[in-house]
Amino acid sequence: MNEFGLIQQFFAEAAASRAASKNDSTLSLGIGDDCALITPPHGQQLAISTDTLVAGRHFPLETDAYSIGWKAVAVNLSDLAAMGATPYSILLALSLPSADEDFLREFSRGLFAICDQYGVQLIGGDTTRSTVLSISITVLGWLPIGQAITRGGAQAGDLIMVTGTLGDAAYALRHPHSPLQHRLDRPLPRVAFGQALRGYASAMLDISDGLAQDLGHIAQASGLDACVDVENVPLHSILQHLVEGDLHRPAVWQYALAGGDDYELCFTVPERSVVAVMAEADLQQVQVTQIGRMLPRQSAKTQVQLRLHQQPFVLQQTGFQHFG
Amino acid sequence: MNEFGLIQQFFAEAAASRAASKNDSTLSLGIGDDCALITPPHGQQLAISTDTLVAGRHFPLETDAYSIGWKAVAVNLSDLAAMGATPYSILLALSLPSADEDFLREFSRGLFAICDQYGVQLIGGDTTRSTVLSISITVLGWLPIGQAITRGGAQAGDLIMVTGTLGDAAYALRHPHSPLQHRLDRPLPRVAFGQALRGYASAMLDISDGLAQDLGHIAQASGLDACVDVENVPLHSILQHLVEGDLHRPAVWQYALAGGDDYELCFTVPERSVVAVMAEADLQQVQVTQIGRMLPRQSAKTQVQLRLHQQPFVLQQTGFQHFG
Repeated sequence: MNEFGLIQQFFAEAAASRAASKNDSTLSLGIGDDCALITPPHGQQLAISTDTLVAGRHFPLETDAYSIGWKAVAVNLSDLAAMGATPYSILLALSLPSADEDFLREFSRGLFAICDQYGVQLIGGDTTRSTVLSISITVLGWLPIGQAITRGGAQAGDLIMVTGTLGDAAYALRHPHSPLQHRLDRPLPRVAFGQALRGYASAMLDISDGLAQDLGHIAQASGLDACVDVENVPLHSILQHLVEGDLHRPAVWQYALAGGDDYELCFTVPERSVVAVMAEADLQQVQVTQIGRMLPRQSAKTQVQLRLHQQPFVLQQTGFQHFG
Repeated sequence: MNEFGLIQQFFAEAAASRAASKNDSTLSLGIGDDCALITPPHGQQLAISTDTLVAGRHFPLETDAYSIGWKAVAVNLSDLAAMGATPYSILLALSLPSADEDFLREFSRGLFAICDQYGVQLIGGDTTRSTVLSISITVLGWLPIGQAITRGGAQAGDLIMVTGTLGDAAYALRHPHSPLQHRLDRPLPRVAFGQALRGYASAMLDISDGLAQDLGHIAQASGLDACVDVENVPLHSILQHLVEGDLHRPAVWQYALAGGDDYELCFTVPERSVVAVMAEADLQQVQVTQIGRMLPRQSAKTQVQLRLHQQPFVLQQTGFQHFG
């Protein structure tokens, strides 16, 4: 067996020992055969998604290995959170330039740490050599049939809400070693809160490419416009402080409205469910902020209107572009 | 939207139009939301696997784009075939250096051609820029509960069988533009035959790293040894011709026993089921050859014994190594 076979075996063994301790009746066969075998729980739908992180594109080249392992899983779990799904398992397709032991030890520590924290098992994978470090993860979760929160269910008049604070990761990307570094490197997907929104949120997604662009997907899928009051967009106290000094204000709004890598949830709520949502947010100690409202579509093309103190607000760039 | 967003949209639209024409009640939500949503059919287990192809490692750099799209799906379907599963859908994580229209048109033609041929839908994906062309596919299939053919079920005395001919792809890799080129570029996974072996084969896998190495996985998982009569290993007439000339014999056995990329099935069958297996092979016009027998393990370590006309046969290298 070559060194890459050994890496694969390492992940398989780590996964197998975790699976044994978990004693999960739905996982009939894990890593080590041609496929993993899953017996779906009764009355549940499978939610599945795949996301790739490429070194130097989706995370800075100098990111520590633990954070790379963590983040690769986190961004995928965030897709489950955005449907209201319960995380179940992942498959890992790892390409890396060399079998660097230090890297692999820290990468797998980060990967399994977030898996353990969110109750997720590694059930399959493939390790290959490539000149570029690249991690593709496929994530699986369960949802009671018919209870998924999609992007297309918003109604005119629904409130637009977001969790946490926006722009932190975009700020951290441009200010290395700032106190917000962890918001870029080790996002905490809003899995429990996403599940709690089942039955309350009319539409939802996770913010990965910036609020303005991602909210556009909800508006588009729901056949509506969206209106955001920029002054209500929640900022971390560090960014809030910068906004209060005039000099940095445009950059901060840029981070918060068009920065990448927030991995917060953006969702719409009918008036009648607002109290229930706020109560759940209190219970989970999740910051939730109303930032705008869904409106009937005013023209053939969906619009996300941004207003600052009732005046139109123009963003330099509508979304985070990984590529030029 | 940037050019890579456009590529993703292109795949999404192609997938959506196919999904609409298929009218599949198990697919509740396809590409375009945070996750795809699948309602599992009653009484079925989900088989899932992931495999990555990296340009220049898993296929020659000069491989045509149509074949790359075809092969990326084929090697994944082969994992389903190896469990006896019915293919259902794929997710595509595509990394490529540039948004080359010609490449993408031919790549997607090949990808969708094999998807259509095997009744598989594209239900999710992610497209990213990288300096290396790399394709990670996750494949999903269904199996009646408890009917998967794993690697670990072989019994001492079971016959070892393989489909098709071995070594063709390894020969083609070293002899560009030979009549066997299609065996390297466009493998035809043995999906229907794999399903037909449910209830008959005691263990199975697909041969991707060479017979000797892969058969070792069955022996290991089953706690047995394996004995192969090398002269019975089925060869394409072109390779058979080379074996009959003494000069090339060692190279040909190398291709057939330790070459990569066969994507034929290797399986074990109890004596009582041999007639049924042969009848099914006739029906499907699949060549099936008995090449050896499973034996009780003779030492602590599993062994794959190779014999040529009853004499021990030594292989230079036991398995295909993608890396040095």
